[in-house]
Amino acid sequence: MPITAEEIQVELDRRRPGQSDIVTPRKESDQVEILSGVYQGRTTGTPLALWVRNTDQRSSAYSEMADKFRPSHADFTYQNKFGIRDPNGGGRSSARETVGRVAAGAIAKKILSEATVKGARAEVMIRAFITQIHDIFMPAEAALTFPTLADVEQTAVRCPHRPTAEAMIERIKAVRSEGDSVGGVIECRVRGVPVGLGEPVFDRLEADLAKAMLSLPATKGFEVGSGFSGTRLRGSEHNDVFENRAGKIRTVTNHSGGTQGGISNGEEIVFSVAFKPTATILQKQSTVDVQGQPTELMGKGRHDPCVVPRAVPIVEAMTALVLLDHWMRHLAQNESFAF
Amino acid sequence: MPITAEEIQVELDRRRPGQSDIVTPRKESDQVEILSGVYQGRTTGTPLALWVRNTDQRSSAYSEMADKFRPSHADFTYQNKFGIRDPNGGGRSSARETVGRVAAGAIAKKILSEATVKGARAEVMIRAFITQIHDIFMPAEAALTFPTLADVEQTAVRCPHRPTAEAMIERIKAVRSEGDSVGGVIECRVRGVPVGLGEPVFDRLEADLAKAMLSLPATKGFEVGSGFSGTRLRGSEHNDVFENRAGKIRTVTNHSGGTQGGISNGEEIVFSVAFKPTATILQKQSTVDVQGQPTELMGKGRHDPCVVPRAVPIVEAMTALVLLDHWMRHLAQNESFAF
Amino acid sequence: MPITAEEIQVELDRRRPGQSDIVTPRKESDQVEILSGVYQGRTTGTPLALWVRNTDQRSSAYSEMADKFRPSHADFTYQNKFGIRDPNGGGRSSARETVGRVAAGAIAKKILSEATVKGARAEVMIRAFITQIHDIFMPAEAALTFPTLADVEQTAVRCPHRPTAEAMIERIKAVRSEGDSVGGVIECRVRGVPVGLGEPVFDRLEADLAKAMLSLPATKGFEVGSGFSGTRLRGSEHNDVFENRAGKIRTVTNHSGGTQGGISNGEEIVFSVAFKPTATILQKQSTVDVQGQPTELMGKGRHDPCVVPRAVPIVEAMTALVLLDHWMRHLAQNESFAF
Amino acid sequence: MPITAEEIQVELDRRRPGQSDIVTPRKESDQVEILSGVYQGRTTGTPLALWVRNTDQRSSAYSEMADKFRPSHADFTYQNKFGIRDPNGGGRSSARETVGRVAAGAIAKKILSEATVKGARAEVMIRAFITQIHDIFMPAEAALTFPTLADVEQTAVRCPHRPTAEAMIERIKAVRSEGDSVGGVIECRVRGVPVGLGEPVFDRLEADLAKAMLSLPATKGFEVGSGFSGTRLRGSEHNDVFENRAGKIRTVTNHSGGTQGGISNGEEIVFSVAFKPTATILQKQSTVDVQGQPTELMGKGRHDPCVVPRAVPIVEAMTALVLLDHWMRHLAQNESFAF
Repeated sequence: MPITAEEIQVELDRRRPGQSDIVTPRKESDQVEILSGVYQGRTTGTPLALWVRNTDQRSSAYSEMADKFRPSHADFTYQNKFGIRDPNGGGRSSARETVGRVAAGAIAKKILSEATVKGARAEVMIRAFITQIHDIFMPAEAALTFPTLADVEQTAVRCPHRPTAEAMIERIKAVRSEGDSVGGVIECRVRGVPVGLGEPVFDRLEADLAKAMLSLPATKGFEVGSGFSGTRLRGSEHNDVFENRAGKIRTVTNHSGGTQGGISNGEEIVFSVAFKPTATILQKQSTVDVQGQPTELMGKGRHDPCVVPRAVPIVEAMTALVLLDHWMRHLAQNESFAF
Repeated sequence: MPITAEEIQVELDRRRPGQSDIVTPRKESDQVEILSGVYQGRTTGTPLALWVRNTDQRSSAYSEMADKFRPSHADFTYQNKFGIRDPNGGGRSSARETVGRVAAGAIAKKILSEATVKGARAEVMIRAFITQIHDIFMPAEAALTFPTLADVEQTAVRCPHRPTAEAMIERIKAVRSEGDSVGGVIECRVRGVPVGLGEPVFDRLEADLAKAMLSLPATKGFEVGSGFSGTRLRGSEHNDVFENRAGKIRTVTNHSGGTQGGISNGEEIVFSVAFKPTATILQKQSTVDVQGQPTELMGKGRHDPCVVPRAVPIVEAMTALVLLDHWMRHLAQNESFAF
Repeated sequence: MPITAEEIQVELDRRRPGQSDIVTPRKESDQVEILSGVYQGRTTGTPLALWVRNTDQRSSAYSEMADKFRPSHADFTYQNKFGIRDPNGGGRSSARETVGRVAAGAIAKKILSEATVKGARAEVMIRAFITQIHDIFMPAEAALTFPTLADVEQTAVRCPHRPTAEAMIERIKAVRSEGDSVGGVIECRVRGVPVGLGEPVFDRLEADLAKAMLSLPATKGFEVGSGFSGTRLRGSEHNDVFENRAGKIRTVTNHSGGTQGGISNGEEIVFSVAFKPTATILQKQSTVDVQGQPTELMGKGRHDPCVVPRAVPIVEAMTALVLLDHWMRHLAQNESFAF
Repeated sequence: MPITAEEIQVELDRRRPGQSDIVTPRKESDQVEILSGVYQGRTTGTPLALWVRNTDQRSSAYSEMADKFRPSHADFTYQNKFGIRDPNGGGRSSARETVGRVAAGAIAKKILSEATVKGARAEVMIRAFITQIHDIFMPAEAALTFPTLADVEQTAVRCPHRPTAEAMIERIKAVRSEGDSVGGVIECRVRGVPVGLGEPVFDRLEADLAKAMLSLPATKGFEVGSGFSGTRLRGSEHNDVFENRAGKIRTVTNHSGGTQGGISNGEEIVFSVAFKPTATILQKQSTVDVQGQPTELMGKGRHDPCVVPRAVPIVEAMTALVLLDHWMRHLAQNESFAF
């Protein structure tokens, strides 16, 4: 497959700091290099090594973290689990690790975009966007259509409904001015997934999506299809009745969110992910030091008042990786056993 | 470790059909036998084989399923993925597979209950219970205390708040009389988990719990700690401030739900799981047959109008398995490297 | 895929005790039942459960083993690793576990036999046979042709060269009469494997074959292609020169044994496996008891004076499983990424 | 654990080109850098990233390889499996990948060297050395003692028996002068492994060692304990009788090679690995080009006439990794289930 660093960079640029005035102003260019696995512009079939240098300064901004546990951060748990902790930039627990997920996801996206079903391009499209920031919700009717990438990218907050997006941006700026932070919800939809991805019992498609999403920093919840609100419906309201639509078996509604029995049913895959408000705030907070003594901590540095806009490409990347894994499993197990 | 079939049977009896008047009246005794791995009443360290015979009749109740796709069931996706499908009792996609999870979970629970931390028994306690059926919610204040097993088991619906439980039971009976079904929410709390379970990046403790829960039939959502409602708080409200409580580092609040940076922090692990209303209803529904022709389907047989009460021991079992896996990983990687 | 218990049974019968006068006369019928995964005679694509009851009597023959460590058996290591040990029939360490490998291998063989390459049946044929028992070797020239199944099965010892087979049978009977045992070597050849199975670096095809073979009880060595004797050649003698034979790229010699760089090259896969003499002998041996006190042990019961003939179908089964795994990986990763 | 790049470099220097006059004179310094996972000279418990730059020139020496398949190399199989192949330096199939194994093995060795059993340091020592080059064998009696590192490193050929080593060096120089190559055998012995490493059935200790060794480039065989020659003994000769030696249960002989039933028994682990003669020779050879047309190929460049001396640290590295994996599994499963 042809692949260039530039194609991967497009996705990294959607994630990197400093891309707009509502995210952290830290200057990190996050330039990707392809170290191996590509020859004359084409993948060789062997592992790809991608490399993004961490150019962030190991600043004194983190020196206080060496001695004190930041509330709702991983400092305390890492210190306890490992007995040692690199405080610079949050070390291994820093969300900077997600740059690797986005880089890998860019490649998975490209493979999926070229995958075919019965000879025709499946045209898999993965679109994540923000439906909620703090207590500002995108109107339900705005979610009825599948947003284009341009819809999502038109504002820094990546909510495709412009009036809502503007209110969200205002809210983020307001809490930032108070040294505070907010969270939100990302919805992700996928079109073009053929019937059949996912496995019985443990490796249901939605189970692997749930794991992928909850493996992201700051996530607190996952819903597929009707999610928690579906628990308030009756079976007769919730069931997705089958119909024959233009010669294809389709469901009239999509409360299932694109899977049944853990296997994709050809409808749009729809799920949402909850992100908590950023733990780093520029306010004085009580805490304890590494000896367990009460102390106070004052957040410093340049942090995201809301990580959710930058998480949109990360959610897409993890979705692409999960779908690609399952596509490969399906090919191995279920298609004609022939070279 | 000493283990008997009877200890495992206790958990299976909490899951089996016919245990109360609000679940399916099918008669399945679900008796477990230990085939291997136990010698003179003790585990041998080698794999355990447990065996629960499926005594359910392969009845004519399922004959219609061979030709028609039941809405919101796995019939259509299995038929497409595998090209063949065993309609008897739902075949491989039947939720009867969860009997194996509960049996394995019973053993995991026993191991965890005997695990020690620095020489003292950790006293790991896993308690799942129902907080919502349809639109009936347990009052938030009723959830402030950790419910006992007796609290949970006092009613057939496994909600520890008796007045709520009674309303839930009425609701389940009402919808059953209409041939309909309802869903709900299970909360699970775990006490006694030491600081340190979980891994950086992909195998965060909550990620593995999310996968385990979404791998269960009929689940649509997962929340840990503050979950989706936490997205409506500010960072200054949501952060779990550390304090020194009686010589131990603890958090004042528990919005995190027991993990930080994907690793347990010693607080209660708290999460919730959404279950959709049972797909099988005793009403006429539109659907298509295996040739894609429109038809109708009339649910027959004896089904659960609400699967959530029987799912309580299943949620506990999966929780035990995830915790035990992570406990083992921790021993392998993080404790003193010594026999 | 159509599958019957009878097809699996054919392979189990090649492995079972009591099949000839040179193996253990224990009466074990090793009848296989298919518990799940097959509907109306066809596999459903979901896991198959196969079941072979252990009808061997838990006899007093094993009572001495509970207290004494049999030389070159797993008694001592299992006792130390697990702190407990089921002495009946050798418990978990008994070679009876290989019945499961043969059953699974029978299914893998059938899949492979139907696999196609570019639309034509690959006609994968896996043939294991004995080339050495004790110090009796099959002449090298007898190995020049690919033996038929009938060649192999014509004698109880499964050496396709009849005069050698008869000498081997005499030797086995002779050592048995002295209460002693012998080992030997199995060669396995595979035809019809397409170019391309195997992975760079760790999961080379021969690496997985080596692991599969050394996972079998009583094995002490593995060679592929020229093996240990190839170390005595020069590069100019050992290299397999390419030629164009009837429009296909082939090698003139096959010192490589069918793989290059860990990946199958379309030539015959050829490897050998060394089996030690059976550890159980009907002679008095020194040993220690579980308290470490010196004692003696007198082998009893009805054992194989030579396990190698019964290991032939086991070697074939493990070969089929390794090849099928790699075939599936190849489909997932390397063939057109299309349903 | 404290770790420095220098400690890792010691092992890399044993593997690198240009270290003596019997290996390839290519100048590759193979300098390792630690990119992550170490803070203030100590491992943080999170993944380590090590980095060795490939400074080898992408020379015209490889241009012919783009069009022609080198005999007994991976050119043909890679081209077929992947449809594309990076010819520079052999690309992904180059044995240069083993530098990563040696780097990782250096860390595994250090962990093992500090591991304790019942409070005392186990003093695990892994010692690989050459016992055969071409048809020159180290005398059996020279192998009776456990060689020291100094014994092994005293000559460039890494055979601890000096007179044999000198003959081997002469042989390597002689074949080099003829543009030819030779192979050989490496023996590896491990002391200090406690009783109990290895798993029943598939993951026997020797099975994982066999896979690790056959995953190395140019390997053709693996033997543990008595190996292929053990097949020529009777059970009464081969069995390792137990005795009580100074209060410990030991075996009188060690035909088993340190494992019984796939689990380490506390005796020396002893195995051998066969390496074929280097495929690259400086002689004209017949072959075909990528279109399948007959052609000739003349090896160029500066290659190892014998790779076996440089493979000694690689064998040790893979051994360390296998033992460490099993040590971790043992801690997870078999030691007291306690933090």
